[in-house]
Amino acid sequence: MNFSLSRRFAAETLGTALLVCTVVGSGIMADRLSADGGVTLLGNTLPTGAILFVLITILGPVSGAHFNPVVTLAFYVRREIPLFETIRYIGFQIVGALIGTFVAHLMFELPILQVSQTVRAGPAQWWAEIVATFGLLAAIFGGVRFRPEAIPALVGMYITAAYWFTASTSFANPAVAIGRAFSDTFAGIRPADLPGFITAEVIGAMLAVLVFGWLFHANEHD
Amino acid sequence: MNFSLSRRFAAETLGTALLVCTVVGSGIMADRLSADGGVTLLGNTLPTGAILFVLITILGPVSGAHFNPVVTLAFYVRREIPLFETIRYIGFQIVGALIGTFVAHLMFELPILQVSQTVRAGPAQWWAEIVATFGLLAAIFGGVRFRPEAIPALVGMYITAAYWFTASTSFANPAVAIGRAFSDTFAGIRPADLPGFITAEVIGAMLAVLVFGWLFHANEHD
Amino acid sequence: MNFSLSRRFAAETLGTALLVCTVVGSGIMADRLSADGGVTLLGNTLPTGAILFVLITILGPVSGAHFNPVVTLAFYVRREIPLFETIRYIGFQIVGALIGTFVAHLMFELPILQVSQTVRAGPAQWWAEIVATFGLLAAIFGGVRFRPEAIPALVGMYITAAYWFTASTSFANPAVAIGRAFSDTFAGIRPADLPGFITAEVIGAMLAVLVFGWLFHANEHD
Amino acid sequence: MNFSLSRRFAAETLGTALLVCTVVGSGIMADRLSADGGVTLLGNTLPTGAILFVLITILGPVSGAHFNPVVTLAFYVRREIPLFETIRYIGFQIVGALIGTFVAHLMFELPILQVSQTVRAGPAQWWAEIVATFGLLAAIFGGVRFRPEAIPALVGMYITAAYWFTASTSFANPAVAIGRAFSDTFAGIRPADLPGFITAEVIGAMLAVLVFGWLFHANEHD
Repeated sequence: MNFSLSRRFAAETLGTALLVCTVVGSGIMADRLSADGGVTLLGNTLPTGAILFVLITILGPVSGAHFNPVVTLAFYVRREIPLFETIRYIGFQIVGALIGTFVAHLMFELPILQVSQTVRAGPAQWWAEIVATFGLLAAIFGGVRFRPEAIPALVGMYITAAYWFTASTSFANPAVAIGRAFSDTFAGIRPADLPGFITAEVIGAMLAVLVFGWLFHANEHD
Repeated sequence: MNFSLSRRFAAETLGTALLVCTVVGSGIMADRLSADGGVTLLGNTLPTGAILFVLITILGPVSGAHFNPVVTLAFYVRREIPLFETIRYIGFQIVGALIGTFVAHLMFELPILQVSQTVRAGPAQWWAEIVATFGLLAAIFGGVRFRPEAIPALVGMYITAAYWFTASTSFANPAVAIGRAFSDTFAGIRPADLPGFITAEVIGAMLAVLVFGWLFHANEHD
Repeated sequence: MNFSLSRRFAAETLGTALLVCTVVGSGIMADRLSADGGVTLLGNTLPTGAILFVLITILGPVSGAHFNPVVTLAFYVRREIPLFETIRYIGFQIVGALIGTFVAHLMFELPILQVSQTVRAGPAQWWAEIVATFGLLAAIFGGVRFRPEAIPALVGMYITAAYWFTASTSFANPAVAIGRAFSDTFAGIRPADLPGFITAEVIGAMLAVLVFGWLFHANEHD
Repeated sequence: MNFSLSRRFAAETLGTALLVCTVVGSGIMADRLSADGGVTLLGNTLPTGAILFVLITILGPVSGAHFNPVVTLAFYVRREIPLFETIRYIGFQIVGALIGTFVAHLMFELPILQVSQTVRAGPAQWWAEIVATFGLLAAIFGGVRFRPEAIPALVGMYITAAYWFTASTSFANPAVAIGRAFSDTFAGIRPADLPGFITAEVIGAMLAVLVFGWLFHANEHD
């Protein structure tokens, strides 16, 4: 199927908005409901993994369902998407992320415009984001290579795991990080900490492009 | 396959009954077992998502497995179901929802007839229901369009997410809302608050009909 | 594929043993780890649903993966399995259930032979078992009719839901109930309460045979 | 597809590293976040099951995605992998496990080199490891025999169950056990207890080779 550019941009905007709305909204809900930090993260993890499965299944056929600037960038580096679209995709993803945060705030009767105070910085956190993004791209490249129909489950499951095994709870997405910077709630990140996170995410993605460009290359003679 | 009208109506009644029985029953069970609000919502979310997967898989081939008046209404607006059946479907869904509530009360040794006292009102809650229902229809329309065999998983996963990311815990279903109005337990809603919720759900569904009627329309020339 | 009778009996014994070992073992583990009753039931639910998916996937092709006397009985009533095999299947399922309980006790350093003291009786509990077993057979008959490859997921998901929405935590299986009667732990049931539970399970199963024998019957002329 | 030996060894190393990183990292995260032991184990279980699904899906086509010396050994005994590769696979799995532990420590700002103090020994624990590994191989052999595309889900689901129903929380993997011996955190095991665990795992695997070599053998005449 071939969808018009306006539909593809709308799909990236809408998908990123619903994704960020889920991340921020479920964080607020879980934080309000439980005093146990583990239960709170479970209540943030389950919805995020589940909505990724849904959004990638229904919007993947329209726009590819990137919802993530480093995913779009990785496909650009692999020459699978032109520069023109890469830039637009990233722009619409950031717009979508901001909309998602605002929609969540409106639902939970919070001020729409907020700025997060949550410090997320330091080499360990950056290292965690490199690992988190490397793994996310591994899941995506592996799905594209061997089992495209499983990509929604792969990404949902990967993020389910990464919320827990990475010390940064796996942002792994610059647009989502920007959206979360404007929410002073459970899922927030201080705007001053964005450059460190985004740099780490780009590094993780580029490492994945290199490693899996080699690893998933089968022998020519067979 | 073609099933008789009586079988289709029975499937809508039985399916909605088992769905509401799960929503209400697991709410009672979770509320009794845990003092942590987050654990309680987890114990309400998991069963609801799981039973939706089961019911849509086994009853979808018979009746389409709507179990939800705004889903039936949306298909009517898209001219995929005649008015006659639309009205009957909605009637049987409401009957099923009431049966489901009664069955749950009987299992947990509660008075069969109850009226909920739980206040669920205000613009933020209504906004949450608009978002919740818009997203539910997105999942359904996307599944119908691109991956029909995944609809049971899409709806189960979507509701798993929406129980947490919407401030209203995502009723997104007028029949289920009516059934829950007659249970003064965890999942209840005050009957006086039904009109606000149902109006919001209809708005969310109609918005989804408009948006996805456009978004999921591929180019004719390809 | 056609498997010898001895392999089929072994599959029923082994499968029921691993199922009961999971139900009893995860109940002991969850009970030891958490003081929150909701967390304990989550820690009992997840493993049970997961192991059902695994066991039915790998042993279904050998024996049909009943692991449950009322499932075998229902297929006998539908004339899909001869009386001779029905009786043997049920015998081996009960033997497997007892082995499963003993294996779990050995792992958790508990006396191998125990008798449960947990009272599970009364009309509400029996009603819950009727509902639970009716729903289980609905999931199985629906899977057999419309989507055989989804049966492992359907049963796993159904039990995930039923642990929470039925007041009895959904035994829905006389062999498993007998196995659990010999464990004075979280999952136990007093032997004196077995007849009530088993009678309710048989009633629920026979109701399902009647209802779904009618409901899943498509029009002949189409 | 045919992948070069170096790619296959890299896949085993990388996969085992990400698996151990998830087991150890999510254990640290869950332990820090919750005071409830049940919530902690849930926060360790979910990520482990999810990452297994991802890693086996994306690396299975390259190396078979063993990530486990007793899995490799079992395939060697079944003459499905030559001795030369068996030894290399096991070596790279152990290297990967150590890398995974170090990566997790770096993310959580812990000393990279640690030695676990957690006692895991005694006949009940060894018996639990025999059962755990027997069941893991059952899931793998059953998947290989009847439904290869379900192997990622089968292994992920099996480990989800086994973390709870076995008293040892199901290591079932000598390489992962060695990796965990070098982490004095939630998932750790005292190096002195490794020989008992590894011996039990080899016994469980060999039992599975025998039992399922017989059980999954269909009649020749049909």
